[in-house]
Amino acid sequence: MKSAVILGSGRVGSAMVMDLSTYGGFEVTAVDWHAAALSRVAERCGARTVEADLADPGVVAKVVADHDVVLGALPSALGMQTLRAVLEAGKPYVDISRMEEDARELTGLAEDKGVIAVVDCGVAPGVANMMAGYAATQLDPCERIIIYGGGLPVERLWPYEFKAAFTPYDIIDEYVRPARMVEYGELVVREALSEPELVDFPAVGTLEAFNTDGLRTLLTSLSVPFMHEKTLRYPGHAQLIRALRETGMFSKAKIDVEGVEVSPLDMTAALLFPKWTYEEGEPDLIVLRVVAHGQRGGKPVTLRWHLHDVYDAATDTRSMSRTAAFPAAIMARTIVEGRFPLGPGVYAPEDPAPQPGFLDEMLDELERRGVHCVCTVLETK
Amino acid sequence: MKSAVILGSGRVGSAMVMDLSTYGGFEVTAVDWHAAALSRVAERCGARTVEADLADPGVVAKVVADHDVVLGALPSALGMQTLRAVLEAGKPYVDISRMEEDARELTGLAEDKGVIAVVDCGVAPGVANMMAGYAATQLDPCERIIIYGGGLPVERLWPYEFKAAFTPYDIIDEYVRPARMVEYGELVVREALSEPELVDFPAVGTLEAFNTDGLRTLLTSLSVPFMHEKTLRYPGHAQLIRALRETGMFSKAKIDVEGVEVSPLDMTAALLFPKWTYEEGEPDLIVLRVVAHGQRGGKPVTLRWHLHDVYDAATDTRSMSRTAAFPAAIMARTIVEGRFPLGPGVYAPEDPAPQPGFLDEMLDELERRGVHCVCTVLETK
Repeated sequence: MKSAVILGSGRVGSAMVMDLSTYGGFEVTAVDWHAAALSRVAERCGARTVEADLADPGVVAKVVADHDVVLGALPSALGMQTLRAVLEAGKPYVDISRMEEDARELTGLAEDKGVIAVVDCGVAPGVANMMAGYAATQLDPCERIIIYGGGLPVERLWPYEFKAAFTPYDIIDEYVRPARMVEYGELVVREALSEPELVDFPAVGTLEAFNTDGLRTLLTSLSVPFMHEKTLRYPGHAQLIRALRETGMFSKAKIDVEGVEVSPLDMTAALLFPKWTYEEGEPDLIVLRVVAHGQRGGKPVTLRWHLHDVYDAATDTRSMSRTAAFPAAIMARTIVEGRFPLGPGVYAPEDPAPQPGFLDEMLDELERRGVHCVCTVLETK
Repeated sequence: MKSAVILGSGRVGSAMVMDLSTYGGFEVTAVDWHAAALSRVAERCGARTVEADLADPGVVAKVVADHDVVLGALPSALGMQTLRAVLEAGKPYVDISRMEEDARELTGLAEDKGVIAVVDCGVAPGVANMMAGYAATQLDPCERIIIYGGGLPVERLWPYEFKAAFTPYDIIDEYVRPARMVEYGELVVREALSEPELVDFPAVGTLEAFNTDGLRTLLTSLSVPFMHEKTLRYPGHAQLIRALRETGMFSKAKIDVEGVEVSPLDMTAALLFPKWTYEEGEPDLIVLRVVAHGQRGGKPVTLRWHLHDVYDAATDTRSMSRTAAFPAAIMARTIVEGRFPLGPGVYAPEDPAPQPGFLDEMLDELERRGVHCVCTVLETK
């Protein structure tokens, strides 16, 4: 039996613990500084728990020492330092922290230590990258890739029709940070929330897609001349958010308000974020659509993946947590069982995806866990 | 030659000065605490000016002492105390301050002093009340009166498509204060911004009308079983304002924001109000529509007034100022010339409106000043 340690026991970390415990073969240890989170995973999954402050890389080095594989579900600000600590400890690592830095800079360290690390290994980034990486080699040439992704509450409450499954400050950041994309082979930057379009999704209905800065590693790892990433929300959300942004409600710089200095973003957060908080047991859903256009044998081909998942009432696990945790857990298993198709290094999910059967296995494993994905091939004969 | 004194030389007060100076018969004195405002009216209209603090009723009593008629264009908070001071000084008074209090409580004082005062004497409240008062007696019975009114910028800038021609705090107050209306003869209260409807206006296009608390004196002075007042904005404004209101952005109560106590409304004001400020020389427009349904000789009749005005480039006077100032100036002239049809007292504009020719004269005088109004009578023969 192998031994896995999960860093962070929040919503995603605890879903990783659940998954590795459920599908066997692992002795699972959960680490967090928050005792309540730990007792929850201990009770639910029978996992071993360790209370520790993972903001300290020295602590990370210690808690990973006796394990065969490490999974990371920590805040993005801790992503890079934790990756380094795990690699220095010589342990394979799968991470979903969405760190700001480019993790691939540590690939030399991973090679030195002879270990494999995969970052951004959730759904988007994550499974979406695998689909993109697969399409980029399957099509010749692959001309265009568009990734649509979004996590939404099932119950649509006016005016935002939105709840935040992860820290809402990060969501506001996605609404403010300029979106990088690729057009005609060049990096292009557009305003976040720009180029809204309505897209229909089975069982969900019409959603609105708009530019966000979500391509991350794909911007440099694939040489596809057109690549876009768009976030999905219920129609109207983006318009309202743009109005708030335009009014200055997301500005971080403090302004004088009747004699006191306040950041408008902090005020907005104080008013808005309580309204964006999921109720206990409130269902959410995830939609991911990846569309790749190109040619095969000189004929136009479109590959289209449609992944859809919903809240799991049986385990009280939100779809956003399921779809972030399961790909990481599946990847960890692949690495531990020696089936990862590449040698030591730090990888994005698109890197192994072109290898035969790799994406299929990921999608099969997700299907076993109730995360459904349909791939459609549109071909001109 | 008669002598008129205008209290307040802001946008409306200075338009009153301009009007009384232009149409002859008056020696005009402008009073304000703000020297720059006074020198502007002196230069433009050749009016005499007095610098004085009109927040002090004793000062008001002094400055009105030597004049035949007084016009008030002061902030609403000063409305009632100024009315009292003017009445105690025994001077006729026309006011557009939109005071919160019911001015008619001072009618006894006006009777004692033998003077006439008319309050709410702008466009809406003001001319709209005259139309309502006229309809209430012309139709038998008058079954329903709806007042639509709004002041808007000509240039529609996303996202608000709105600028504030008077203090924006008062506009937010209109968006927050519950709207009182009359249905089946009973007072009914609904949320401000409720019951939005799209209405088409010639030369302006489609506007959105929603409930606001604008019936004021009409709620008690007319016994019409259905009375509604709705504010007009470009479509979409109300939805956005509702979202801000729902998010708590208009809340006055201070909340803790990262350790400091701030009123969300003050923060919103700091961000929003600069965007709601008219540029120098920026054109605005006014739309007023009053619709009255009822019967005449047992046949259904609808009376409909449509008043439309725009910014006057020649005098750099906004429509909002013109349409507030001109009715007051016309009314002052009527009083001074002894043509006001009722005896001493404090009146709302609907009170004299049923008298023969009274409304026609007001509309004719407005027409002379370029404020156009069309009255349509729809009759079943």
